[in-house]
Amino acid sequence: MFTNKEIENIRGEFPFLKLKPNGKNIVYFDNGATTQKPREILENIQNFYETENGNPHRGAHYLAMKSTEVYENARQKVADFVGAKKASEIVFLRNATEALNLIAYSYGLNNLSEGDEIVISIMEHHSNLVPWQQVARKTGAKLKYLYIDEDKQIPFSEIEEKVTEKTKILSITGASNVVGTNPDIEKIVKYVRENSRAKIILDGAQLVPHRKVNVSELDVDFLAFSGHKMYSALGIGVLYGKEDILNEMEPFLTGGDMIEYVYEDHTTFLNAPQRFEAGTANVEGAVNLAAAIDFVNKYGMERIDEYERYLTDYCYEKLIKLEYLEVYTTSNKNRAPVISFNFKEAHPHDVASILDTYGIAIRSGHHCAQPLHRFLGSNFSCRASFAIYNTVEEIDYFVDHLEDVRRILGIES
Amino acid sequence: MFTNKEIENIRGEFPFLKLKPNGKNIVYFDNGATTQKPREILENIQNFYETENGNPHRGAHYLAMKSTEVYENARQKVADFVGAKKASEIVFLRNATEALNLIAYSYGLNNLSEGDEIVISIMEHHSNLVPWQQVARKTGAKLKYLYIDEDKQIPFSEIEEKVTEKTKILSITGASNVVGTNPDIEKIVKYVRENSRAKIILDGAQLVPHRKVNVSELDVDFLAFSGHKMYSALGIGVLYGKEDILNEMEPFLTGGDMIEYVYEDHTTFLNAPQRFEAGTANVEGAVNLAAAIDFVNKYGMERIDEYERYLTDYCYEKLIKLEYLEVYTTSNKNRAPVISFNFKEAHPHDVASILDTYGIAIRSGHHCAQPLHRFLGSNFSCRASFAIYNTVEEIDYFVDHLEDVRRILGIES
Repeated sequence: MFTNKEIENIRGEFPFLKLKPNGKNIVYFDNGATTQKPREILENIQNFYETENGNPHRGAHYLAMKSTEVYENARQKVADFVGAKKASEIVFLRNATEALNLIAYSYGLNNLSEGDEIVISIMEHHSNLVPWQQVARKTGAKLKYLYIDEDKQIPFSEIEEKVTEKTKILSITGASNVVGTNPDIEKIVKYVRENSRAKIILDGAQLVPHRKVNVSELDVDFLAFSGHKMYSALGIGVLYGKEDILNEMEPFLTGGDMIEYVYEDHTTFLNAPQRFEAGTANVEGAVNLAAAIDFVNKYGMERIDEYERYLTDYCYEKLIKLEYLEVYTTSNKNRAPVISFNFKEAHPHDVASILDTYGIAIRSGHHCAQPLHRFLGSNFSCRASFAIYNTVEEIDYFVDHLEDVRRILGIES
Repeated sequence: MFTNKEIENIRGEFPFLKLKPNGKNIVYFDNGATTQKPREILENIQNFYETENGNPHRGAHYLAMKSTEVYENARQKVADFVGAKKASEIVFLRNATEALNLIAYSYGLNNLSEGDEIVISIMEHHSNLVPWQQVARKTGAKLKYLYIDEDKQIPFSEIEEKVTEKTKILSITGASNVVGTNPDIEKIVKYVRENSRAKIILDGAQLVPHRKVNVSELDVDFLAFSGHKMYSALGIGVLYGKEDILNEMEPFLTGGDMIEYVYEDHTTFLNAPQRFEAGTANVEGAVNLAAAIDFVNKYGMERIDEYERYLTDYCYEKLIKLEYLEVYTTSNKNRAPVISFNFKEAHPHDVASILDTYGIAIRSGHHCAQPLHRFLGSNFSCRASFAIYNTVEEIDYFVDHLEDVRRILGIES
């Protein structure tokens, strides 16, 4: 946990907290969408462009070599952060969405066919759902869903029923961006390995920024996540893949930096990671993600996790007591720092808009999870999601103003 | 043109010029690979993250709305900059490579088949060559090259010979990143329109940062370019496409922000630009590209072009007089600010490494154009490429030190 003094110091590192939307101190509870950036991350960008910016891998001059060095150091840092065995298993992309699409295109389209099955959960973000629909449509493979129970957990019987010898892909979120559920990845992986030869993909978009993840211990084949949900700049994401699988996959984007030899009529390609990094790399993003890893390591992922769970539990306990709300987040305390809910008698956009007038930023909408919302019986929801700079006082302020929402909308029940 | 005083002021805006690689003032002639960033671009990034950062399009709170506003304003600015009729014709991607791959995947793979032909030039960067090889391989279409003459120009007879009714794609660079050639796009488009129903793609990676481009006047169907070669941050690129063509194309990456409705078994998609922007947008990059457009507009693209041509002519005239060099850049003064050359008796990497000891950054390698280099009879070359902050004095310093390269390598001829 963090002391109040520590949280105060952490908050001092985030310039966005000076913002006063509608004249109020900002309370930013939209961290599941994107996090704000500490000063050292902003300084890192500036420093990169002033002293290290070049186009890596292709030059023999100072800035080309410097940018190559910092880019590859960033790759090693990410590899260490997620427990990859080699830096070459880390591919820098734009975001988790691109990483999941890369797997769908390069692995899915080339390795699946009629009779094969893809298993995902009903909790998936569209980015880990629509690409698999497309693969199913194009290859004739069948898409199967793991459904959830009333507490938004996947009953293990769902795994036992849906995962078979026909399963070629199991792609699952490590943390739901709506209901907060953390599926038991270790147990699922064990079962999948014993009962199929499926490739296992972990969508870490909502997991990696909050929990220590070790791909080698989890024994997943792929992991996808984005930097911007973990205090890093936008425009940088990561695909981890086991080396032998990556190198057997067809390239995705083609062009500069990923080729070995280009002839007029054919081309040979480099191995991973270059194989999947066509065009000028976003070195700013990679270096910045490395700085974000330094930032979370400075405080320790375990302590960040503990603090965010504390905030989540605190908020959850307050909200479930309010009879005019329906809370969708799982009651299981092993959950992501995400509280989703609805006013029984108000549209979430109205709720978010009114809270905005008090400086409070929550998300309203389908959170890129329409099938889950349909399953929950609502098209949209409100979502408060937490990060290291949030406080119990902010949660109190937020909960107090839910009453104002009621008042303004004339909700009596 | 710029006065010496103006150039001095412009140089004062670029913090990287304080760098002293190997103790020498930096002379950065690798602008064809990536440009350096003026202070206002770096401040723009900082300002964005401190006051505007949110995940756009999906929220009803201040930062979500602010980020949507600045993102869509950036799109309009880019549309105006390239003469697009509508902002919705501008798709934000990572770089030009991704833009070209998007066309290859979404248009090429779905619209070409055996009997169809793709025409590109032998001067293409790998990013406008390998994707078309892949489309040809997967669809059975034929890939045809426009070859160049001794002065690195495309004889019009090549167009007349290669473009036929079978041509379904003509994809061509607006400016060669090696030999500097600017093909006559207007004349080519006119011929292609009259003799085929091909879609016309302009690779503007080396053109847009240096010349005023108007897609409506040129009547191209697609234009691709990257921000980082025009003083903007890394990680942002643009695909322009005519609205009706974009909306008929299958989506490329799928996931958040690009869908209309997602059901368990199928999905409906939004129109362009959202259709092609899956996942969290790089708002930093888009906003920064808009700032880069303001930066070049402040000086005027015509004046920048004029100044860069002046530097290019000056350097070209000096280098062609050196008998120990072979210069590859076209003699035609309608050319990009790119001088490529080789020492007749030295490897370009040695040349670049020695120049680096004097603080001079030139590129050495195949510049992602292996087929062109093979055509020129050399595997690699040296390349000096210019931007607004370069000077005649830097060119003098560079040319003087070519003599040192000779001396150090013991070249006598």
